[in-house]
Amino acid sequence: MDAMIEKKSIVIIGGGFVGINAAKILGNSHGIKVTLVDRANHHLFQPLLYQVAVAGLSPAEIAVPIRSLLSDFANTKVVQDEINSINLKEKLACGHQGNYSYDYLILGAGATHNYFGNEAWEEHAPGLKTLAQATEIRRRIMIAFEKAEIEKDLSERKKLLTFVVVGGGPTGVELAGAIGEMSRFTLARDFRSIDPKLTRIILIEAGSRILHSFDEKLSSRAARDLESLGVQIWTESPVTKLTENSVMVGKERISSATVLWAAGVKGSRIGAQMEVEVDQQNRIIVEKDLSLKNSPEVFVAGDQAYFAGEDGKALPAIAPVAMQQGRHIAKNILNELNSRPRINFRYKDKGQMATIGRKKAIAELGTLRFSGFLAWITWLFIHIFYLSGFKNRIIVLIQWAYSYFSFARGARLIIDRNWRFFKKTK
Amino acid sequence: MDAMIEKKSIVIIGGGFVGINAAKILGNSHGIKVTLVDRANHHLFQPLLYQVAVAGLSPAEIAVPIRSLLSDFANTKVVQDEINSINLKEKLACGHQGNYSYDYLILGAGATHNYFGNEAWEEHAPGLKTLAQATEIRRRIMIAFEKAEIEKDLSERKKLLTFVVVGGGPTGVELAGAIGEMSRFTLARDFRSIDPKLTRIILIEAGSRILHSFDEKLSSRAARDLESLGVQIWTESPVTKLTENSVMVGKERISSATVLWAAGVKGSRIGAQMEVEVDQQNRIIVEKDLSLKNSPEVFVAGDQAYFAGEDGKALPAIAPVAMQQGRHIAKNILNELNSRPRINFRYKDKGQMATIGRKKAIAELGTLRFSGFLAWITWLFIHIFYLSGFKNRIIVLIQWAYSYFSFARGARLIIDRNWRFFKKTK
Repeated sequence: MDAMIEKKSIVIIGGGFVGINAAKILGNSHGIKVTLVDRANHHLFQPLLYQVAVAGLSPAEIAVPIRSLLSDFANTKVVQDEINSINLKEKLACGHQGNYSYDYLILGAGATHNYFGNEAWEEHAPGLKTLAQATEIRRRIMIAFEKAEIEKDLSERKKLLTFVVVGGGPTGVELAGAIGEMSRFTLARDFRSIDPKLTRIILIEAGSRILHSFDEKLSSRAARDLESLGVQIWTESPVTKLTENSVMVGKERISSATVLWAAGVKGSRIGAQMEVEVDQQNRIIVEKDLSLKNSPEVFVAGDQAYFAGEDGKALPAIAPVAMQQGRHIAKNILNELNSRPRINFRYKDKGQMATIGRKKAIAELGTLRFSGFLAWITWLFIHIFYLSGFKNRIIVLIQWAYSYFSFARGARLIIDRNWRFFKKTK
Repeated sequence: MDAMIEKKSIVIIGGGFVGINAAKILGNSHGIKVTLVDRANHHLFQPLLYQVAVAGLSPAEIAVPIRSLLSDFANTKVVQDEINSINLKEKLACGHQGNYSYDYLILGAGATHNYFGNEAWEEHAPGLKTLAQATEIRRRIMIAFEKAEIEKDLSERKKLLTFVVVGGGPTGVELAGAIGEMSRFTLARDFRSIDPKLTRIILIEAGSRILHSFDEKLSSRAARDLESLGVQIWTESPVTKLTENSVMVGKERISSATVLWAAGVKGSRIGAQMEVEVDQQNRIIVEKDLSLKNSPEVFVAGDQAYFAGEDGKALPAIAPVAMQQGRHIAKNILNELNSRPRINFRYKDKGQMATIGRKKAIAELGTLRFSGFLAWITWLFIHIFYLSGFKNRIIVLIQWAYSYFSFARGARLIIDRNWRFFKKTK
């Protein structure tokens, strides 16, 4: 009889932590077919993306093809496509390659950078959300040092050896710390004309302190750790202008060849095109069960969703939230198909961590607050534990063990953006 | 007294096997300073480059920054620059970033693809010489499967699932074999609409057999091995026309979305700009000590040089020749600086190998000729042994052990060529 009923179609937008965790629970369930749509062909372990940007890891070590993660599930189809809009009335997700009809829709399309209206700044200050952006940042950092080595003009050289990171959240802190570590240790002996240890690194934060979501003591510990790596922290310094090679903070102007953007995110543009309630950051406001107010068959989760936690504040845009929400939605869909009621989502807070460099991290786990080596080791094992794929874990572990003892970074490659040798003739 | 004499300047063009091996011998010698110039910032282990193109390895696993390879040598400076011309009279190597004055010049700038006058074909059929090209090929191969999965038109789908490799030398054989293996094993379970096992792979060779530098028996063994992976071999089939999505061989026409070029190489363009004797492939003809006829202070080696071996034929464009020649030149320069005579170069032939796939390879080592599992294991250990960097060896070994047992490929990433999220506003 099962075969007589038409299978319910569940469409998942996004192969991030929301999508993969939902798909794994829905996989192989009877009576449903699952279609996961993502622009990229890979699931990305975003918490380690900054490591690719600073040449610590290779892209393949933190990314796995979505197909292979889900290949065991015969009821699941993976499509590489970009969704342009959602038609809530017709229950259609419309993409470049086709339209996907759904009975249930799970939106986990994530977030993109927020340049707060100055999208043109992206050209001069790339953000860090995709592998392409991470390798572009890596290319820019490595090229700056190469150019500085042959530059004779002193002020030009100083510009090349100045790195500005905008945004003092975890990503900004991780980027700035890693650039500090790279310039102070990894590159120290490699150059002849320049001394990489003299590299200026400036972390710019609009608010009154970095890592504002953390306890104040931990935040100030992180600031001291950053300073020990040569990073200068400018707080209460909103960026007012950004051009090629310079950053304006009020009336101050810094010349820098490499500016990186980690100042804010906003929900994927899919949200803006649906007529649903969003917050200032374009995150879609969801009900207690993560569904849309007037479309209970549509769920939104992860960075794309605004879900008020128990303290009334929005849950943070971090991996554990996305993973728990993805699993919760999938269970609720299966509940409903089996005529059981939906359950409201409750976030199990596992705490938060940020790493600054080798042996330097801060952690808040429950009521525990700790920092230094212990926090760093905890951070390291938690991240390796959650990395997808057995082989990736071993390789990342070796990379880190090697970097730890040698201070080296393996992936210091400048890969040309143009692969052609001969010029185009047309 | 040593400090009173001006140090002799040795300029090395190219950080390939020639340059690195020469630099390592010249490193820390008294009375000389060494400048190594390369367009890229990394030394590339080219024999494994095809593995990056077929998603078996990551770029960083076969590439090491030239700076870190040579950071121990205080007399050696590494510059990332592209040399446009050599002024033999003034003893100057002229680059974009500056001119490099030399007492001795070592040219090891390698080779590029030979489209035999049809350079416009590169757009449709990339060759495999740089990391950027390897990742571009990987992108094209992976995208072809993704597009085929959602393509409804049958002939379009067939085109997407047809891979043509032009050139039956070791690189072409390795590429075709690896695509065969990937489609038959790695991807077999990942798709729902297409069956990757039905992928057509065509290896096109203008000559009468593939791997013509090998013994005829081994070459036919390799052909059988390729066929067992689904590769069809077309011999005596010179390509007459190549457009986007199609290859003409005489009057026959194949529709293929992915055409790869491995049909021939020619010496770097630096050779063409100097007024020196070159062969048909633009390789610079050198003397018995690898120097130029009328400029004994200039040496040329590796793929860029034409050096007649003991049998009167040119030495092949393979890594062992370049490594031995690089070391030989460095020793001769040190000889001369110590008033000892130069020694003529003699190639110690260590044989040749080609791999077709898992457990499939052919080898000629001295008078030994063997194939199959033993040849494959030999190939594998020789390549890992020569890989630069302790960490890279371990990681590549793990990657291969993992692929061997799981048939998986770790680096199946499609990384967008455009890193920007927001469109450019200018």
